[in-house]
Amino acid sequence: MRLAELSERSGVPIATIKYYLREGLLAPGRQINARTAEYDEEHLRRLRLVRAMIQVGRVPVATVREVLGHVDDDSLGRAIRLGAAMWALPQVPEPDEDDEYVQAAQQEVNALLDQLGWENAKRLTTISPAYRSLVVAVAAFRRLGYGWGAELLAPYAELMHRTAVLDLDNMETHPSEAERIEFAILGAILNEPVLQSLHRLAQEEETTRRYGFE
Amino acid sequence: MRLAELSERSGVPIATIKYYLREGLLAPGRQINARTAEYDEEHLRRLRLVRAMIQVGRVPVATVREVLGHVDDDSLGRAIRLGAAMWALPQVPEPDEDDEYVQAAQQEVNALLDQLGWENAKRLTTISPAYRSLVVAVAAFRRLGYGWGAELLAPYAELMHRTAVLDLDNMETHPSEAERIEFAILGAILNEPVLQSLHRLAQEEETTRRYGFE
Repeated sequence: MRLAELSERSGVPIATIKYYLREGLLAPGRQINARTAEYDEEHLRRLRLVRAMIQVGRVPVATVREVLGHVDDDSLGRAIRLGAAMWALPQVPEPDEDDEYVQAAQQEVNALLDQLGWENAKRLTTISPAYRSLVVAVAAFRRLGYGWGAELLAPYAELMHRTAVLDLDNMETHPSEAERIEFAILGAILNEPVLQSLHRLAQEEETTRRYGFE
Repeated sequence: MRLAELSERSGVPIATIKYYLREGLLAPGRQINARTAEYDEEHLRRLRLVRAMIQVGRVPVATVREVLGHVDDDSLGRAIRLGAAMWALPQVPEPDEDDEYVQAAQQEVNALLDQLGWENAKRLTTISPAYRSLVVAVAAFRRLGYGWGAELLAPYAELMHRTAVLDLDNMETHPSEAERIEFAILGAILNEPVLQSLHRLAQEEETTRRYGFE
């Protein structure tokens, strides 16, 4: 397809596509003459992903470039490639290790991982942004005077594990490795509001089932 | 306890507590003489909730006052009181009903509710902020060129329902009605980052279980 069709099918203005091309976020089309290039479904897919990252995820352009570099690096194994792409997304700031709430939260989260038997996650604690953000979130609770011990967290963690199994099952339906990783990135950026809304809707359903409408 | 102790135990500066008192977010203490008032555990609990709403949830003061008004209104039934408090929290803007993506998303979400048999949620669609935010989130996916049909959403919704069952089971361990509603509000404000972090941690655990560390 030509640039105009790429723009129409993606809903991304031509000027924006040209900007993405200049910034290296989108591979150049196949040049068919001096003034015209041809784009394919892969361009369309990548363009939608870039747009989702920038528009919805508010991911900085330099970070988008880094994430896509990992997606396209087929010299890496699947887990590393997926991890590198996901971990390059903007993350919570480092927790302050000297903070007493952070230290208590770390102990709680470590106890949780033991209780769950999440051996792999335990091996990743020093480098994992997800571990870090959980510590930050649990520490925020503690700082406000609320405990959130491993016993309370464990059943939620089990449900989130089942959610992650669904995520990966869905991811594996995609044919190519690059598409699978793109799907995972998209999920990290777009699924959150869907899950959160489903959660609140489920709370309303369950509340009214238990207590009626009055 | 005196104001100084209330401040120390809550970690909220005295000047801030005085501001909350002036704004009616915290009930006055029991006056023991012209210059001294006495506060109890209920003040401490309420103060922590107000702080969580304002500091973490960035809820405007007027909204905090409204939410607390619902919490304290024991003329209402449990579901209404809980709903009124939760629904007063800041929500996503109204979806634009004329937008084709919003219309398609509404159909998808309605089909989902049918498939799930969430009869109560269906009765609430015209007034529920959770329904609205789900429509907005699904429409955002569509606008970027991604479908998120009822078949894909349903297993996630089932897991979020089990999460909501946990939420309400935990809520019901609290002795008084006001405490239960406070707990629900706190959850709406503070649980989100915990759940999101648990979800990402579970993704890492599941990814490395499936594909190893390379």
